[in-house]
Amino acid sequence: MDTLGEIGEHAAIERLAASLGTHPDLRIGAGDDCAVAALPGTETDQVFTTDPVIENVHFLPTDQPERIGNKAAGRVLSDIAAMGAQPQWILINVVAPLKQEVGALEKIYDGINALCRRFGATVIGGDLAQGTCLELHVFGTGTLPAGTALLRSGAKVGDAIFTTGPLGGSIDGKHLDFVPRIEEGLFLRESGRVHAMMDISDGLATDLRHILRASGVGAVLGADAIPQNGTLENALYDGEDFELLFTASAEDATALQAQWTEHFGTHLSMIGRITDRKNELCIQMLAGTVRIVEDKAFEHFKPKMGGTNNE
Amino acid sequence: MDTLGEIGEHAAIERLAASLGTHPDLRIGAGDDCAVAALPGTETDQVFTTDPVIENVHFLPTDQPERIGNKAAGRVLSDIAAMGAQPQWILINVVAPLKQEVGALEKIYDGINALCRRFGATVIGGDLAQGTCLELHVFGTGTLPAGTALLRSGAKVGDAIFTTGPLGGSIDGKHLDFVPRIEEGLFLRESGRVHAMMDISDGLATDLRHILRASGVGAVLGADAIPQNGTLENALYDGEDFELLFTASAEDATALQAQWTEHFGTHLSMIGRITDRKNELCIQMLAGTVRIVEDKAFEHFKPKMGGTNNE
Repeated sequence: MDTLGEIGEHAAIERLAASLGTHPDLRIGAGDDCAVAALPGTETDQVFTTDPVIENVHFLPTDQPERIGNKAAGRVLSDIAAMGAQPQWILINVVAPLKQEVGALEKIYDGINALCRRFGATVIGGDLAQGTCLELHVFGTGTLPAGTALLRSGAKVGDAIFTTGPLGGSIDGKHLDFVPRIEEGLFLRESGRVHAMMDISDGLATDLRHILRASGVGAVLGADAIPQNGTLENALYDGEDFELLFTASAEDATALQAQWTEHFGTHLSMIGRITDRKNELCIQMLAGTVRIVEDKAFEHFKPKMGGTNNE
Repeated sequence: MDTLGEIGEHAAIERLAASLGTHPDLRIGAGDDCAVAALPGTETDQVFTTDPVIENVHFLPTDQPERIGNKAAGRVLSDIAAMGAQPQWILINVVAPLKQEVGALEKIYDGINALCRRFGATVIGGDLAQGTCLELHVFGTGTLPAGTALLRSGAKVGDAIFTTGPLGGSIDGKHLDFVPRIEEGLFLRESGRVHAMMDISDGLATDLRHILRASGVGAVLGADAIPQNGTLENALYDGEDFELLFTASAEDATALQAQWTEHFGTHLSMIGRITDRKNELCIQMLAGTVRIVEDKAFEHFKPKMGGTNNE
């Protein structure tokens, strides 16, 4: 009789996902940032995702409500960005205790609505139930041209690896205030150059391993190439960066960086290469030595502030 | 500074819903059983809903896990049925404590998957997070021909009022084992005869008032016409029946009942009439006396077993 505490979140999700069904319109089921389904009779696919944001796990009772709302909507929008999709509809289940101030809930919704409006998403419903602490369960959909969703499974040996921004140190505030990389995700999908993509919620080391596993490849990162807030350890393991992590042909790298700078006015960081050493994640240190990156995946049933439950 | 405990769920939802956005593709926002949006470039509309199912509110820790799963999926499917839509995609956020048995979670998913498969819905994703008690937050979509969703707002003076099955006493087991009225909802929408529809989750008296308010009408029920498990009080106030409540032209009533019996082999109960006395809900007793039905709406921040948080 295994408990969640004994086997951990990832093993439990795998067991539950094994029972899920299939459908001819379903292109990608559980296991990527979003599920992807064809919209029959159209040239459009629809993506679906859901994320919980829970008091004392994802935010503190003392955090400003607008920022809690930003994070609740932002996590779902970040998953949609990671597919290269345009956000569409949002629904929210709120769980709250009797003593919850309704004014604070309204401010949380202000944060949610502000971020949604910025990226063309609309909150269209939800529900409210009583519980012991404040929780927001956000469900979102998005759209993109049929068959163009960027998956974790597309990385190819020799690809360059990129990230859209600095990693680590999100606990200092970015985990609440981040801007989901919707515009970047759309740009990257439209560029036609990206092979694999996801968002970084559990930390670079853990999330890159998801791409490696899904694609059947390895990777080597350049320690000095990773844009970071704090130390290399922070960049590898902190999590909740909500930047995009993606790969593209090495031959396209310079052109993609130039296109990026022209469009966004910023530098696009190339942080490593995809190798043929399956599931092996290495890092080349400044001194030239190469070390294997430890697999200390964030496990969601050992909660810490700033940690996520995103799968 | 109002708290949820002071103002109650319905007032809180009204305040939060006031801030929600609009979109040209959005036909029906928060306030009906589902939100309804056009699927651009198609002759199809898509419906969206979400419901929480929470330990010690909607089920007991001692309830069988498959039945908990049936209820979790069933509540969302019942909302989809209430629009006359065909269920499509399901996503689930699970919140559970460390000590949660993974085997029990798998059985909950067995219950969810069995009900979904029966009605053509497919579970395509979700998430798992740590919390103090077991919660299932289920999100669902459905489809129907553009512009045909059956709303709470369509009841007309003189309409006959119907329910698809007996009301009351769901606490004896039906609140876990009910079958969402998907087939009945599709049949009723396709009949072209129904003016207004919703599902009964909070009890006949409370839910009929939603139709009266949304439609700007009143109603008189026949005490002897309401199919009931237990007393009239049970039928009016128990809740969690998950039968459909709908109205159709009085002239169509006989034909609709005949069509129903031919299709389902059962009797369709006509339980009352829509009147022009706005928001007034009366009941004609066996003795011929008429009394006004008390407005003791189930309030979701005064939880009881068998109560719901559905809006």
